Amino acid sequence: MLHVNVSRLLKNLEGLGQIGRTPAGGVSRPALSKADVAGREWFRRKIVEAGLQFKIDGAGNMSAILPSSNLKANTLLSGSHLDTVTNGGRYDGSLGVLCALEALQTVKEASLNLPVHLEAINFTDEESTLFSELGSKAFTGQLTKESLKHTRDAEQLEAGLHRLALSKTGVLAAQRNPHRIVGFVEVHIEQGKQLEDKEQHIGVVTSIVGIRSYWVTFRGRAGHSGTTPMDQRADAMRGAAEFVVQAQTLVTDQYVPGVINFGQIELAPGNFNIIPAQARLALEFRHGTEAQLDQMQADLLALADQIGQIHGLSVSSRPVGNSIAAKMDERMMCAIEAASTKLGLRHTRLLSFAGHDAQNLCRFVPTAMIFVPSVGGISHHPSEFTHNEDVVNGANVLLHTLLSLNFTH
Amino acid sequence: MLHVNVSRLLKNLEGLGQIGRTPAGGVSRPALSKADVAGREWFRRKIVEAGLQFKIDGAGNMSAILPSSNLKANTLLSGSHLDTVTNGGRYDGSLGVLCALEALQTVKEASLNLPVHLEAINFTDEESTLFSELGSKAFTGQLTKESLKHTRDAEQLEAGLHRLALSKTGVLAAQRNPHRIVGFVEVHIEQGKQLEDKEQHIGVVTSIVGIRSYWVTFRGRAGHSGTTPMDQRADAMRGAAEFVVQAQTLVTDQYVPGVINFGQIELAPGNFNIIPAQARLALEFRHGTEAQLDQMQADLLALADQIGQIHGLSVSSRPVGNSIAAKMDERMMCAIEAASTKLGLRHTRLLSFAGHDAQNLCRFVPTAMIFVPSVGGISHHPSEFTHNEDVVNGANVLLHTLLSLNFTH
Repeated sequence: MLHVNVSRLLKNLEGLGQIGRTPAGGVSRPALSKADVAGREWFRRKIVEAGLQFKIDGAGNMSAILPSSNLKANTLLSGSHLDTVTNGGRYDGSLGVLCALEALQTVKEASLNLPVHLEAINFTDEESTLFSELGSKAFTGQLTKESLKHTRDAEQLEAGLHRLALSKTGVLAAQRNPHRIVGFVEVHIEQGKQLEDKEQHIGVVTSIVGIRSYWVTFRGRAGHSGTTPMDQRADAMRGAAEFVVQAQTLVTDQYVPGVINFGQIELAPGNFNIIPAQARLALEFRHGTEAQLDQMQADLLALADQIGQIHGLSVSSRPVGNSIAAKMDERMMCAIEAASTKLGLRHTRLLSFAGHDAQNLCRFVPTAMIFVPSVGGISHHPSEFTHNEDVVNGANVLLHTLLSLNFTH
Repeated sequence: MLHVNVSRLLKNLEGLGQIGRTPAGGVSRPALSKADVAGREWFRRKIVEAGLQFKIDGAGNMSAILPSSNLKANTLLSGSHLDTVTNGGRYDGSLGVLCALEALQTVKEASLNLPVHLEAINFTDEESTLFSELGSKAFTGQLTKESLKHTRDAEQLEAGLHRLALSKTGVLAAQRNPHRIVGFVEVHIEQGKQLEDKEQHIGVVTSIVGIRSYWVTFRGRAGHSGTTPMDQRADAMRGAAEFVVQAQTLVTDQYVPGVINFGQIELAPGNFNIIPAQARLALEFRHGTEAQLDQMQADLLALADQIGQIHGLSVSSRPVGNSIAAKMDERMMCAIEAASTKLGLRHTRLLSFAGHDAQNLCRFVPTAMIFVPSVGGISHHPSEFTHNEDVVNGANVLLHTLLSLNFTH
């Protein structure tokens, strides 16, 4: 049975980890920074040395290509991103790019002639330093001249693109034809500890969770904290606190593995001796499908109203963010499971609770994700770590997934 | 049976309410402001016109005195304050001063020769505009040169004192000899609605509540709001919310009429997508005795610890304020009850949940307070209102309380 080259893969991971390395042992390669540019150049050299074709598009997405002998073949795509958050870890993103590169090299060295072109890609700015998921959004045609203006710092984006001799016009031209791509597979560290807790080697992502967020406001009556008896208050804080407790219980009881968070709260007037007239709560919840999110939303907002009624408070809510749940492709998930089983690896289906380039790709072409364990679930931190055997497992499962897919699209 | 002069009392209340009157029908006479100085001059003229002795001390406390024929007699004191909060009402404080003045005039006109001097007093700055309860603290010897420096605005205080030709040295000299004062009785509006709800004419204050306040901090672990499963969180907000709900339930179940308030909360880091690592809650609670406050404090802080343990949070608390509960004099309370009964008025014992000059006096001489109903419990607001019959009831109960007290001190 074909396996990837373990020492090459681990050496590449080690070598890439030196670029943008921080004193604490982490990595800082924010998108299009000097460190990212150095990482990209390192990747280009690896591609050329491997005898693969090198390609870069107008959004700075870099690819290694192993062409099929059939020049009219479509492309089977794999990859992730080389950029990191500031003071991040060595595995997030990098692992998926290096596993894809390793898979192509292994197929090339085995002289297999596949009915598809294989392409290993590094998407620009997955971590959204300059523009939210710039590369995979450009690749999948989700950007317009207008939407490109909505950036945190237009000057920094211009400067970053200029560093790679790119332009906004070029970014818009990066869109690919989905009919020429049979699918996308991304290897990634889990960034959680479901696999570790369940002692599984491989996670097969069923969906990247959708995220909905709201400001939920309870309004009552300000009052003197001494002279107003407890049973005559309309205390906005009391409503907010009951909502926090009961909403978390609701999600834990009925929506596992869905999650909920109350990350901020603002009271007014905000004095020790005044009963709060208003409490504004930051509510965020995540789940795997839009249907589940719809049901959670209905249940949560009804709960807030019900608590408001009990305590004489009015309740209103304002949507803040809405990231749509991204369903992975069932046929590709089965291919990952089959590959894992063939390799003797324990695997489980799970949700991805963090965002990935795959959530843009999945609306474009059949898409799947292969998770490997993160020790302690730690990510976006210098102590982010995945054992070497899990790194290798990820690459081998990717290799056999790519080989096993039925390419009659 | 002797009664006060109703038309004079109501005319005085009406006249005083014109001084510092606001367009909304409220009154603004912040301590030592021009309006307060005008109010004080109005009061001085009323004293002189009534043929009573006028006296002012170094803290600006103004008194009308009706001397006993026994020149060695001690003094029975009554009064309140003429200053108001900005945009306050016409009854808070003023009522107590005018009832005391009216009682002295009534006794004088009835040619009663009492074994005590009667004194009707206006304490300076009860509302703590320039210095927290300046007049009654000076009167009871609670101030020092050092403590006088701890003011919000030293220049404003100097300017205010200067407006009355007073000085800080004079303030410190205002202390009276408690052995020469047999007691203090203060008439005041309730500023709550216990009397209204219970359909009572007169409230006999048993205690001015003590107030304790704390910052209570729950500390957990920040975490990714997506990738951290609900059962692996140490969510500071969850602990704080449970504490708010359970602490209020505890007080409502076990400490009525004690009250509790959570007027502010601060989360860190404070983002939609980060599990709160820290939640700092502003806790304030009030009750009638130090023993009850000690028990409440022990129960509440134990509850916070217990909730912290359940959720894997550490809990700490820092005292912010501590206003000691002020117990009223039992013999004087009984005198108020007897006077009310004699006048055919329904009376009840209750706590005062707001602060008053009486809380300084009670540590100095036997002290009591007579409450009359506030419509809707509204105070510190232009719509503060007490019915004329309740105004008159307050004055008559004061009159008969002063007459009935056994002055053998």
